[in-house]
Amino acid sequence: MGFRGVPGHEFVGSVSEGPRDLLHKRVVGEINFGCGQCENCARDLNRHCPNRSVMGILNTDGAFAEYVAVPAANLHLVPDKVSDEEAVFTEPLAAAFEILEQVQIDPGDQVLVLGDGKLGNLCAQVLRLTGANVTALGKHEDKLKLIKRAGVRTILLNDWKPRSFDIVVDATGSPSGLELALSAVRPRGTLVLKSTIAGNHDVSLAPIVINEITLIGSRCGLFAPALEALEEKSVFVTPLIEKIYRLNDGIEAVKHAARQGARKILLRP
Amino acid sequence: MGFRGVPGHEFVGSVSEGPRDLLHKRVVGEINFGCGQCENCARDLNRHCPNRSVMGILNTDGAFAEYVAVPAANLHLVPDKVSDEEAVFTEPLAAAFEILEQVQIDPGDQVLVLGDGKLGNLCAQVLRLTGANVTALGKHEDKLKLIKRAGVRTILLNDWKPRSFDIVVDATGSPSGLELALSAVRPRGTLVLKSTIAGNHDVSLAPIVINEITLIGSRCGLFAPALEALEEKSVFVTPLIEKIYRLNDGIEAVKHAARQGARKILLRP
Repeated sequence: MGFRGVPGHEFVGSVSEGPRDLLHKRVVGEINFGCGQCENCARDLNRHCPNRSVMGILNTDGAFAEYVAVPAANLHLVPDKVSDEEAVFTEPLAAAFEILEQVQIDPGDQVLVLGDGKLGNLCAQVLRLTGANVTALGKHEDKLKLIKRAGVRTILLNDWKPRSFDIVVDATGSPSGLELALSAVRPRGTLVLKSTIAGNHDVSLAPIVINEITLIGSRCGLFAPALEALEEKSVFVTPLIEKIYRLNDGIEAVKHAARQGARKILLRP
Repeated sequence: MGFRGVPGHEFVGSVSEGPRDLLHKRVVGEINFGCGQCENCARDLNRHCPNRSVMGILNTDGAFAEYVAVPAANLHLVPDKVSDEEAVFTEPLAAAFEILEQVQIDPGDQVLVLGDGKLGNLCAQVLRLTGANVTALGKHEDKLKLIKRAGVRTILLNDWKPRSFDIVVDATGSPSGLELALSAVRPRGTLVLKSTIAGNHDVSLAPIVINEITLIGSRCGLFAPALEALEEKSVFVTPLIEKIYRLNDGIEAVKHAARQGARKILLRP
């Protein structure tokens, strides 16, 4: 987005100024700040407000800081049972739950999650909560192990049957993910695009038409179901943490996060 | 599909051999011949049978002939009120009706059809039956006139508001249609891909994720609603006919059909 400013949109903090019922409480915050005036905001879709700001991404500073300003309406109290290290996953976990807002997934459905990274891991865990038969496909044995430990069936690349999955989620973050997803989904099945790719795709979309695939783009989600899952310990997030840095060591932390295959890097002021 | 054989999959004929209740009656025929054994066939989705033949397209001869063999189960009687020239549109009209099988369209929905060709024309007419506000967008004034005459609002390219349509149907048959469609559909809206493109798309799919667009591929449809619409004269198809050739002049007819902007060319044995 060509953003300049303070980055960071996954955070937990305590309220130092604001409404009395939130003051000094632990909170997490939804990252899209809507205008509050438009049709989308009226429909509780401030994450699609055409005039929105997005923390650390578009027009407003983010959370790699000691203090950050967030509209009170965006904040959610963090239940006592949820640790800081868990709470900081609320935002990406909400993005995984967003799939359930968009797609009807039934017990017994064959679901494939492509990508064994952080987002793929969270998506696989969330989808498993529906009672669907979830398989996660990746190319890193160590990362697949993390997903398997959370109770999801995992397979290595090339070990799967084409056109057999009711629902496929592409969380690879790679341009080749879509092509793989298109070959995995059954006719009339659903393909969820969970990661954005910079630049253009160079892909034949004819299979979408011929097999009447439904392709759904999926981005940010509501925080409530994510916080509930963290409180109930129905998903496991802390194994995804690789290291915690001091905010003062932010440059080094960002470098570490950019390493191939790095898990979550946290910053603490 | 690299098909070699007799082409043609839009036809009306009379039954010369077959079950007694069809004999000597006028019929049209669904073009996908399923195996009758698989899961898709069991779900009345022979058009997605992995072992299907498709008339004039895949593994079986088509209708540019005096006689053609079609499974009796694929045939539909043509009502007396429907002329041969109308009946021959059943197949493409069914493809337009397929959209209504796949997408919930409500009265008042803002719907945009991209492309003023034959398929765009039929789609616009069919979508209008839902009570939605349908607009057809094209670049040929003469073709838009045909659509307008059927009661659909029409606009020329560049005369529209971005991100304002609930549902956009790409019937352009052109690789640039998708990009245009993506800029026309509102956040959380639905985009129907109605035409296949040979080769790859070179397009950024990021807007699908960012705006959480649902992209649905749409191909062949059931014949019953198409025949009903032809019988009730709720859609107008014969203005789309440009010329009728004798089958003996088929080579010339196919050349004519390939001309830029040609409407439907019919063959009569």
